[in-house]
Parts: sequence; structure tokens; C-alpha cells
Amino acid sequence: MKHVFENHDLSTAECGQLVDITDDVVGAVERSDVKNGMALVYSPHTTCAIVINERERGFFEDFNDFLEQIVPKEGPYYRHDDLSIRTEGLEDDPHDIPNGHSHVRAALLASSSQAIPIVDGDLLLGRYQKVFFCELDRARERKVFIQVLGD
Amino acid sequence: MKHVFENHDLSTAECGQLVDITDDVVGAVERSDVKNGMALVYSPHTTCAIVINERERGFFEDFNDFLEQIVPKEGPYYRHDDLSIRTEGLEDDPHDIPNGHSHVRAALLASSSQAIPIVDGDLLLGRYQKVFFCELDRARERKVFIQVLGD
Amino acid sequence: MKHVFENHDLSTAECGQLVDITDDVVGAVERSDVKNGMALVYSPHTTCAIVINERERGFFEDFNDFLEQIVPKEGPYYRHDDLSIRTEGLEDDPHDIPNGHSHVRAALLASSSQAIPIVDGDLLLGRYQKVFFCELDRARERKVFIQVLGD
Repeated sequence: MKHVFENHDLSTAECGQLVDITDDVVGAVERSDVKNGMALVYSPHTTCAIVINERERGFFEDFNDFLEQIVPKEGPYYRHDDLSIRTEGLEDDPHDIPNGHSHVRAALLASSSQAIPIVDGDLLLGRYQKVFFCELDRARERKVFIQVLGD
Repeated sequence: MKHVFENHDLSTAECGQLVDITDDVVGAVERSDVKNGMALVYSPHTTCAIVINERERGFFEDFNDFLEQIVPKEGPYYRHDDLSIRTEGLEDDPHDIPNGHSHVRAALLASSSQAIPIVDGDLLLGRYQKVFFCELDRARERKVFIQVLGD
Repeated sequence: MKHVFENHDLSTAECGQLVDITDDVVGAVERSDVKNGMALVYSPHTTCAIVINERERGFFEDFNDFLEQIVPKEGPYYRHDDLSIRTEGLEDDPHDIPNGHSHVRAALLASSSQAIPIVDGDLLLGRYQKVFFCELDRARERKVFIQVLGD
């Protein structure tokens, strides 16, 4: 079995940004020389998601309006942001910039990764499908892992 | 490594339909002769999802009521449906039937695919688990890709 | 291709519990001796999810508050719980403890599994990422499948 792994660094600009990483994934598949297998696109972060959808500005804004509506950044009380109750030894992410909403949004989407089939050397994204790295926290330095497995 | 890929065409009837494709997946696994590996069930569309849940009419209706409640088809303004603002060269899906809600629903579920283990020749779906192709747009002609990988 | 499959039994305590199964997954990868491949963590249940996020008490409570807010346990009418309408031969899960909300929550998260890359023998979870089995029904006996594939 062939195996290619690539880390791609990226800098996000703001909460809700959908960074189109399709060319990175397609490039990794080409470099892998895998004819039949799959590409696994993975975010090693807890406040991000990998999402496949259309590259269309209206959708980007609709999706962010929706997330803001059901998991608002401001207003609700998030225990994650309340340092006074973090007393049980579970927390491992001390932070001073509140991001409780980011964790809930990431858990809602529950998409640390997306898997895409590779057949006869082609990544089988549909005509309108693009692969996005979705930033659910603020502007940050991020990594996206692309793994190609197959023969 | 063995590799079997099948495309199954299907015609959906309406928004929210959950098409049971379990038999297609089980059949592909049998045809593959893969003993240990995984089945990747993939939708190449931007307004659909692959969902695993119970085949039960009440659940189907509950789930659609829920989606309609949090991402209504009518009422909200979706920029995706506003052709006047599609001016940035990003859009690649000119359409005249509004489906902004379909894109948001698909991004919310964020499930272009589901992966299921195959062990000793058996697809390890639980007793009540069925695999569904979930139509989030209107009645359309669709494809579902089933890929079986393993030995 | 190497293949290791493990079933881990677990007893959940309540709806919304996030059971940290990271050590189970890491252990399975070590036992597999797979250097490059992936771990597929799979729930064979229809009212559970596999979620990757931070192990932090505040987040746990925020996430459950959110789920209760958008898919309440009490209050809404769930057809799934109405035995009088289950007349079409679809149902295969007769039950007397209402769990309509559990099915909708599971379908919303749409995460029967999570796949994680393995590179040079290491499971590539990010610094703050933990793997959770998420109970969306009541206290129950559950299974989680861990499959390691690769070379």
C-alpha cells in the first residue's frame, strides 16, 4: 500500500472563514501516484472543521449567519470561558480569549476530517464540491493534514 | 489491497427524503470479496448528506421537522439565492430554483460520507443502523459512490 | 495490509455524557504495529456519536446545554415516540422509553465514526484533541469499534 502524508500550514483571517484547500488535496493525490484509494483530510484542532460544499460567497455568508444564530459568539454564558469553574483537572487549554462558542460549533459540525475516494487516479469530488478548512475560532495559525492511502 | 468502486444512480422524490441504501452497500461489500477493510459511502453533491440512523418513519419526520425549524426553506433571506450579489467570480452553480437552505443544511450535517468497518467479511453496521442518502434539495437525479477497500 | 479490530464495551451514565476513549484508540494503534494508515473509531448505535474535541468540563456542559436547547428532550412532540403511528412496518426498535430527541441529535451530529491518520506509528491527534464516545440516549451498555488499517 502506498502512503503519502503532507502537512499544510495556513493562516486564517477570521472566525467563520472557509479556506479552499481543494488544490492542496488534489496536488497531494497527484504526488502520491495512488490510483485507487482514499484521501483523508484532517484538522488536528478542536475549534475547526473540514467541510465539503460549494465555493460560493452567498453560501459562505449564509452558513456563518446560521452558526452565529444558533451558537452566538456574544451573549450566552459559556462555561468553557469561565476560568473560575475550571477546577477539575480536565482542562488542558488555558486561554484568555473566550472561545466557548468555537468549541460548541466544532462539536456540532463534528467533522475533524473528510474522506474522499480516489479511483483510477482521480479524486472523486463532484462538479461543485470544494474542500474547505473551516475556522471556527479567531484568526490563527493552523495545520491541515492530508493523507493519501491506496495502491 | 483489493479495491471495488461502484456508482449507484438514484432519483430522489423530495427535500428531506432519506433513501435507504443499506442493501447497495452490503451488496458492494459482498461483491468485493474484501474480508477486512472498510466501506466508504460518498455523496458527490453539495446539497446532500450520508447519514446512518434507524429506519423508522417517525424519526424521518422528526428529523425533517427539526431541519425545517432551524434552517427554514421559506422566510429567511439566503444570499446564495440572491443572484444580484453573485459578483465575485466564486459561484459555479448558476441556478434559478432557490436552494440556499439546502447548502446550509448540508454544511451543518457536514457528512459527504460515512465510513463503516468490514471485519471477517461482514459490514459492521449495528442492529438498528441503516445507511441513508439524504436529499436536502428538491427531487433530483443523484449519484452515490460506494468504495470498498481492504484485503 | 495490517488490520486490527477491537470492540470496547462501555457503560454510559447519562444522556450527553462524553466518554473519553482516547487511550483505547492509542492502545489499539500501538497493539496493531501499523506505522502508516488510519484508525477508524465507529459507534454501531443509532443514538450515539463519535466526537473529537477538548477534554474540558465547561465545554462538556456548554455542548449539552446547546443540544438541549435546539433538540429538547421534553416538550416537543416526537413522532418516533408515538407508538400509535408506527404502523408502516419500518420500525425495528420497539421501545417504551421515549428517545425521539436522541435520534434527532444523532442525525444532526451525523458522526457514527471518526477517522484519524497514523503516521510513523503515531496517531496524529492534535495537542488538545481527545476522542469521545458521546451518549445521546440514557444510561446504556454500549460498544465502540476501533479498527486500525495500514502497513
